[in-house]
Amino acid sequence: METPLTPLDFARRARRLYPEREAVVDGEIRLTYREFFERCDQWSAALQKYGIKRGDRVATIAPNTHAHLEAFYAVPQAGAVIVPINFRLTAADFAYILNHSGARMVCVQADYLDIVDSIRDQVPQVESFVAYSGVKVGWSSYEEMLKGADTSFEAVSVDETEMIALNYTSGTTANPKGVMVTHRNTAMNIMGHLMHTQMTAADRYLWVLPMFHANGWCFVWTITAVGGCHICLPKADPKLIFEMILREHVTLLCAAPTVLISIANAPQELRAGAPRGVRVFTAGAPPAAATIERVEGELGWEITHVYGLTEVSPIVTISEIRPEHAGLSPQERAVIKARQGVEYLGNAEVRVVGDTGAEVPRDGATMGEIVIPGNAVMKGYYNDAEATARAIRDGWFHSGDAAVVHSDGYIEIRDRWKDVIISGGENISSVEVEGVLLRHPAVQEAAVVGMPHEKWGESPQAFVVLRSGHTATSEEMRLFCREHLAHFKVPHGFEFIAELPKTATGKIQKYVLRGGRANITRQ
Amino acid sequence: METPLTPLDFARRARRLYPEREAVVDGEIRLTYREFFERCDQWSAALQKYGIKRGDRVATIAPNTHAHLEAFYAVPQAGAVIVPINFRLTAADFAYILNHSGARMVCVQADYLDIVDSIRDQVPQVESFVAYSGVKVGWSSYEEMLKGADTSFEAVSVDETEMIALNYTSGTTANPKGVMVTHRNTAMNIMGHLMHTQMTAADRYLWVLPMFHANGWCFVWTITAVGGCHICLPKADPKLIFEMILREHVTLLCAAPTVLISIANAPQELRAGAPRGVRVFTAGAPPAAATIERVEGELGWEITHVYGLTEVSPIVTISEIRPEHAGLSPQERAVIKARQGVEYLGNAEVRVVGDTGAEVPRDGATMGEIVIPGNAVMKGYYNDAEATARAIRDGWFHSGDAAVVHSDGYIEIRDRWKDVIISGGENISSVEVEGVLLRHPAVQEAAVVGMPHEKWGESPQAFVVLRSGHTATSEEMRLFCREHLAHFKVPHGFEFIAELPKTATGKIQKYVLRGGRANITRQ
Repeated sequence: METPLTPLDFARRARRLYPEREAVVDGEIRLTYREFFERCDQWSAALQKYGIKRGDRVATIAPNTHAHLEAFYAVPQAGAVIVPINFRLTAADFAYILNHSGARMVCVQADYLDIVDSIRDQVPQVESFVAYSGVKVGWSSYEEMLKGADTSFEAVSVDETEMIALNYTSGTTANPKGVMVTHRNTAMNIMGHLMHTQMTAADRYLWVLPMFHANGWCFVWTITAVGGCHICLPKADPKLIFEMILREHVTLLCAAPTVLISIANAPQELRAGAPRGVRVFTAGAPPAAATIERVEGELGWEITHVYGLTEVSPIVTISEIRPEHAGLSPQERAVIKARQGVEYLGNAEVRVVGDTGAEVPRDGATMGEIVIPGNAVMKGYYNDAEATARAIRDGWFHSGDAAVVHSDGYIEIRDRWKDVIISGGENISSVEVEGVLLRHPAVQEAAVVGMPHEKWGESPQAFVVLRSGHTATSEEMRLFCREHLAHFKVPHGFEFIAELPKTATGKIQKYVLRGGRANITRQ
Repeated sequence: METPLTPLDFARRARRLYPEREAVVDGEIRLTYREFFERCDQWSAALQKYGIKRGDRVATIAPNTHAHLEAFYAVPQAGAVIVPINFRLTAADFAYILNHSGARMVCVQADYLDIVDSIRDQVPQVESFVAYSGVKVGWSSYEEMLKGADTSFEAVSVDETEMIALNYTSGTTANPKGVMVTHRNTAMNIMGHLMHTQMTAADRYLWVLPMFHANGWCFVWTITAVGGCHICLPKADPKLIFEMILREHVTLLCAAPTVLISIANAPQELRAGAPRGVRVFTAGAPPAAATIERVEGELGWEITHVYGLTEVSPIVTISEIRPEHAGLSPQERAVIKARQGVEYLGNAEVRVVGDTGAEVPRDGATMGEIVIPGNAVMKGYYNDAEATARAIRDGWFHSGDAAVVHSDGYIEIRDRWKDVIISGGENISSVEVEGVLLRHPAVQEAAVVGMPHEKWGESPQAFVVLRSGHTATSEEMRLFCREHLAHFKVPHGFEFIAELPKTATGKIQKYVLRGGRANITRQ
C-alpha cells in the first residue's frame, strides 16, 4: 500500500490539524492555516477555471509574500508545475526562462510588472499575465481572480515521480537550466530537514532566503508540515531582519553566507537587543569559521551548515553535531561547522570520488568531486537530454564541487572543480585561502582566483573587501597569509575593491575576477 | 531518480559515518558499529552459504540480545525475510508460526531450545536449527557459523514494496496472522520517529520493548540510523531497568503501559537515584494520566504516547505537544498525553469513521473506528487473502479500535469496538471507566467489561488490582466512580483480584474476564 510521497500530503495533514494556528504573517496580513488553505484552494480553482491542466507550467516572479507562498500549494494541487523565477534576473533571463519552461501563465509582483511588459512580444506562448499586486493594463488581478473563484477544484492524484516544480539554475556563464524536481524529491528533502532539526508548531520561520531559490530549500513546505508560522520578509536587510526577529518572535531562518556576514557585522545596537537561541540554516558556500564564531558566540544563535544544489532538491549534507564535539573549543567547533559534513538522513548517499570513480581516502587532503545518487537527484534538466546526460552518469549526479573527506567522514568542499588553482603542479583551493583572509580582522569579504603565470602556470590572486572603517596593505595581507598557509598558497597579489561581483543569488562570480574586470568597482 | 526506501539504506549510512561509535552493549559485550556490521555481514554470508535465497523466511526466537539485533540487518541484506517470533508464546504457537511462515531456518536463544526441540516433528519444512547460545545436539552454533563465514555476501537489490519482515500478531482468540511489512513501510515509520523526536548519535537506547514486537516498533533500525547505541536488556524488570539507566547513561526507551506502571510504582530507593530527562515512548494502550503524572512529575522523565498496530508498521499517531499546552496544569497535560493524538508526519493519514465511512464530528463524544490508508499499511496478511480483504477495504486498514476526535483534532481511543459496553442503549467505553479507577490512590490496575444484564442488556463490571499495601472496598470504589462518571457508567460490581489476565505482549484479555474466570488468581 503506497500513497505518494509529496509535500501536498504534509499540507493535507496541516489542514486537518492546525486550522486555527497562524500560518503566515505578511506585513499587516495574518492568516490562519484555515484562511491560508482557503486562499490556496481558491487559486487552484481559479487556475482550473482559467484552463490550467495537469502538467502545465505556471511561473512566478515575486519576493517572499503570502501570495507567492500560496502558489507552492495551489499550483501543484491543481496538477500544474510551479516555475519560481529569480526576481533579480534580467529581462532577457525572464524571457528565456518563460519560453524554455513553456509557462502558460506568469504571476508577478508589482515591482516586476514593467520589466515583464517589456518582454511580452518575446514570450508569445504566455497566455495569462497575473499581477499579485499593483494591477495595470494588460494584467489580471490575483486578488480579483481569487475572489471570483470558489474553493472547489479537482484535486489531481499525484504520481510521486512527476514534477512538482521546475527550478532554474542561476546560470552564471551559460543559459539557465530547468531542474525537474519531483514530488518525491521534495518530500524526502522535507523529511530530511525534519529529522535533523526537530521543528514544531511552536516554530516561527523568517523568510530571509528567497522562496524562488530551490523552493526556499523546501522550507515553503517544511514549515507548514509542522504547523509552524511563515513570517514574510520583503528584503534581506539586516535592520529589518533584527526588527522582525524581535517583533514576530522568530525562532528559525535560512540565510546565505553573505547574509550571515551582514548579520554578524550588523551595528552593535541591532545585535544587542537580539534574542538568543535563534536557529539559522546556512548553505550556498562554506561560512567562514570567523562568522560562525561571531554569530554563535556573540549572538548566541545556533548555525547549522547544510550543503546542496538545485539538482539534488536541494540539501544533501549537514555539518552534524556529534557528542565528541562537546569537548572542543568554540574555535575548533566552528572549523567543523564550516565543513559541509555528512549525508542527510533518508535523502541521499553522498560520495567524493576521483577521476576513476573510486572514493578518495579520508585524509582531509585528497580532492575529489562530490557525486550523489538516489532520492535527492532531480528527474533531469527540462528539455535538455544532453546536459542531463552530462550531469547524471550511471545514476550519479556530478556536482562539480571539489571536496576532501576528513577522517571522521565529514566532507569539506575545497572549491569548484573549475576554480581549483594549479600552481607549480600543486592544487590550491581558492576557498582555503579565502578562509584565511576572512580571519583577518579588517577583511569583510575575499575571493581568490588563479591568474596565468609564466613560471607556475597559475598563481593565486586575492580580491579583498575591507570592513567599513578598516584599512590594510598588501604587505600586511601577505604576511598574514604566510603565517597561516603553506607558502605556495599565498596569493601573489592583493587587490582591494569596494564589492565583489555576485550572481543574483549571491554567489561570487570568479570568472569576472579572472577575466575582464570592467564590472569591478574599485575602492 | 529513486533509490529504494529501506532501513538498509540507513544502515549503509551508519556504516560509513559511525564506524567507531558504540553500537551495542549486551552484558559484557560491547561492539562498535564497525564490529557490529562485520558480524551482520558474516551472518549474511553464512546464510547465503547455507543456501538461503531471496524471499526465504528466517525465524528468530530470542530476547533482546546483540545476536537478535544482528538478524534485523543480516537477514534482509541477504535478501531474506525476518520472522521474529514472540518468545513468550506456547510450543503450539511456535509450530503454527514456523509452519505458516514457511521458515527454512529458525534461530533460537538457549532458553527456548528445548521447547523448539519438542515440536521438531511438527515443523518438517524447517531445515536448519541455529542456537544463538547454549548449543546442544541437533543445533548449529550461531557463533561457529559466523566464524566459518567471511564477510562477503551478495547484497540483494531491494524493491521497496517487498517484505522486510513477517510479523505475527498475538492472536488472543484466533490463530496468529502474519503481517507482511515492506521495506518502504518500515523506512517511513523510522523517518516518522525521527521527525517527531530528534534522536542523535548521543542517544543511548535501552531495549525494554521486545525486538520481536513489530520489530521493536522499528527501533531496531531507528537507533542505528542516527548512530545511537543499543543497550540490550535481558528482562523488563524495574530493578534492572533503573540499574541499566544509571550504568549505561540511557537517554531513551520504549515501554508498554504495564511496564510504565511498574516503573512508576518501583520502590522509592530505585526511583530516587534515577537521572532526570529520560525520554520514554509508550504504546499499546492509553497510559493512565495518573501514571504519566507520576513518571513525568516525580521522575522528571518525558513520556511520548504513540499509537499503532502491527498492521500499520506500526506507529501512526502521536500525542504531540503543542505550544498552547504550555499553559496547562500538569494534570491537564497528562489528560492530553493519554490521548492517542494526531497522525504521524509522513507516514499515514488517520481517520475516525462511523458505519457509513464518514468521519465522526470533532465533539470528543461520538465514537468511530480508526482507519488508516497509505504508506503505513502492510502489504497484507501472509497467505490469507480473506483476512486481508476483511482488514483492508478500499485501501483503508480497519483497526478495530473505537475512538473519538476532540475539537483540537486529537484522537482518543475509547475502546476496542468489541469491548464497548452497551448498557440501556448507551455506549460505555470500558477504558474511560478504567481511567477513573486508576486515579484512585489504592488502584494499581483495572479492567472493566460488559456483563449480560436482564434489564440493561449489558452492565459494566470492574476487576481491580490494588497497589501493594493498600486496601479498598467495593462501596468506596462505587462512590469514587459516581463522583467522576455519569451514573450509567458506574460499574455494577467490583471484584478485587491479584492480577489481570494478559497476553504475552501485556494486553489485558478481557474475554477471560467476561467468560470463564478459571484463569484469574483471586486475591
